[in-house]
Amino acid sequence: VASRLPGVGTTIFTVMSRLAHECGAINLSQGFPDFNAEDLLFERVAHWMRAGHNQYAPMAGCLPLREAVAAKVEALYGTRYDVESEITITAGATQALFTAVTACVRPGDEVIVFEPVYDAYVPAIELAGGTPVRLQLAAPDYRPDWAVVATAITPRTRMIMINTPHNPTATVWTRADLDHLAALTRNTGIVVVADEVYEHIVFDGATHASCAAHPELADRSFVVSSFGKTYHITGWKVGTIVAPRELMAEFRKVHQFNVFTVNTPVQLALADYMTDASRHLGLAAFYRAKRDFFRDALAGSRFELLPSRGTYFQLARYTGISALGDAAFCQHLTREVGVAAIPVSAFFADGRDDRIVRFCFAKNEATLSAACERLLRV
Amino acid sequence: VASRLPGVGTTIFTVMSRLAHECGAINLSQGFPDFNAEDLLFERVAHWMRAGHNQYAPMAGCLPLREAVAAKVEALYGTRYDVESEITITAGATQALFTAVTACVRPGDEVIVFEPVYDAYVPAIELAGGTPVRLQLAAPDYRPDWAVVATAITPRTRMIMINTPHNPTATVWTRADLDHLAALTRNTGIVVVADEVYEHIVFDGATHASCAAHPELADRSFVVSSFGKTYHITGWKVGTIVAPRELMAEFRKVHQFNVFTVNTPVQLALADYMTDASRHLGLAAFYRAKRDFFRDALAGSRFELLPSRGTYFQLARYTGISALGDAAFCQHLTREVGVAAIPVSAFFADGRDDRIVRFCFAKNEATLSAACERLLRV
Ligand SMILES: CSCCC(=O)C(=O)O
Ligand SMILES: CSCCC(=O)C(=O)O
Repeated sequence: VASRLPGVGTTIFTVMSRLAHECGAINLSQGFPDFNAEDLLFERVAHWMRAGHNQYAPMAGCLPLREAVAAKVEALYGTRYDVESEITITAGATQALFTAVTACVRPGDEVIVFEPVYDAYVPAIELAGGTPVRLQLAAPDYRPDWAVVATAITPRTRMIMINTPHNPTATVWTRADLDHLAALTRNTGIVVVADEVYEHIVFDGATHASCAAHPELADRSFVVSSFGKTYHITGWKVGTIVAPRELMAEFRKVHQFNVFTVNTPVQLALADYMTDASRHLGLAAFYRAKRDFFRDALAGSRFELLPSRGTYFQLARYTGISALGDAAFCQHLTREVGVAAIPVSAFFADGRDDRIVRFCFAKNEATLSAACERLLRV
Repeated sequence: VASRLPGVGTTIFTVMSRLAHECGAINLSQGFPDFNAEDLLFERVAHWMRAGHNQYAPMAGCLPLREAVAAKVEALYGTRYDVESEITITAGATQALFTAVTACVRPGDEVIVFEPVYDAYVPAIELAGGTPVRLQLAAPDYRPDWAVVATAITPRTRMIMINTPHNPTATVWTRADLDHLAALTRNTGIVVVADEVYEHIVFDGATHASCAAHPELADRSFVVSSFGKTYHITGWKVGTIVAPRELMAEFRKVHQFNVFTVNTPVQLALADYMTDASRHLGLAAFYRAKRDFFRDALAGSRFELLPSRGTYFQLARYTGISALGDAAFCQHLTREVGVAAIPVSAFFADGRDDRIVRFCFAKNEATLSAACERLLRV
């Protein structure tokens, strides 16, 4: 069968996690915690299973979970999304992003993305027949240049996909960035897709600038979040998407024929668990401690650490260590040093290689210590 | 935003289940059991959660589950699918079907479907830019006419989607049907997508004719199955797809950017649970008893019952009762009689209405009794 994605191989996260596993390396590549979630959450899942809530959830998601999401979003971002028509529970944030693109992008449409770009975005655009328009951001700050964005917008621009806090660069956008985005997309019909899965992980007194909080952008944005990142359950694959009613209606037309709905007892358990807001509000401090621990432990190394302002990722430049390209360097790190990382060139279509790799610090201190000990020897 | 699916509303299953809920009707519309799965299965989920298996599964699925699926398929259908490259665990059968279509169908391709057709197929084809070619099958037997199928095949035919045991008609195809399909698709490059989610529910001594068991078709088919239908957990949204390596490689390119992977502890629990083959082998007898109970209870009614040879559905013609169209009749049944059903016209693009409705008998005897009592009064 002729490939619809001829340029696509296996996602870098699978490639590096598999290699880490084969080599017995400490896996700081794919982003996931190596500690467990709370027993209470598991007990709630078991409760709803035993209580017989194992059949199809409503297509948009279980009502208590949509209500809990609406309450959280309103509390944090000040916008009230309608539970019936503006919130959908998804099989992870990736499915939300894929479905939003599929629902809105037509053959010939242009979609602006910022590189380094999370690897799921562009294939979704291409499968919909759209043309990705890639704008490269530059290390170490990866700031968007809004004058450049302005020139990239054409009458065919249908969508702009943004991601803040940003994976892999660990940068966060500001309210001023969103104001620029709002100005550029005013009266254009352009839809914004905001991947905000690390919304609760921002450091150093910054606040997360959500499109859901922006008075103008909220009216033309899909905003995507993730329970996996927030509650240490990346393997449960549950996310949320909120959008104004007209956009959500189009989203659901596709969603209902893609996955239809999401695990019922898991949704009900998450609704119970969400009621304690300290669980997401405490996340930034939790991960800041890990970031600081990791950075301190690497302070004496020959890696040059870039700022990490949000997410659970840390970029590191290794030009003082090796002349290898970043893919080869990650292979070397995994095989010879025993620590797996992600080459940032994987997020550039032209293979741009700034000799920077990404580490995930969502790990126990013992794991981070052991990894840093190895990395200090490089 | 301009709709990519302008003709699509909310799926009939959501519409009817919502109406049943609003009216307090007995819900024999959307297909799901009203009894619970076994506690043992829930205990296994809780076990794997507590044991800390809550992060990303491998993209293709957890190895023990893929191994259990390979063993089951080999035992039942005689074909050994490679665990590494030919089996993927999906977020339900719907996601498997959607992803297979997205991975293989290009703009301009034709895809043959048989009406009445499950409502998720055609939107997937249309989103991929394909053209659905609909062949209508006729009540009461809904047998395909292979001479007609032959004339529908053109050089643009990229895929044929089949479903056996068939929802909504409760018919089952035979090995002879698959031989016809094999002959017609020989050396054409046509891919077969076989929706076999009711594979374990065939009655009256018939055996399920799986594309996975067909020596020729197995080499060009995606075969889709569902844990939800088999283990009474439709709300868990876990399915499987098997296909030869080249097809699966294309499937996974899309799968990894659509949902990436599926709930880890649920997968591990299903792997444990599957090891007892009596659980799926006993399903046909279990549902045959329900079918017989339901049919017997309706024997004195004015509904004309069509054959139910597989699935947990029963078609009924109501021409002796009402002159209403089937959608209106289902509204009437739900609102006035207190029993929700699905109008079969919902599965025909041209609205063809044979005055037939679908009941789901995956219910406790008490539920079926109560429903039949009401239906006898009509
Ligand atoms: C979908 S697996 C990758 C998880 C992740 O988001 C990352 O490592 O960046
Ligand atoms: C996806 S909800 C509908 C369940 C089902 O397959 C049916 O009722 O036919």
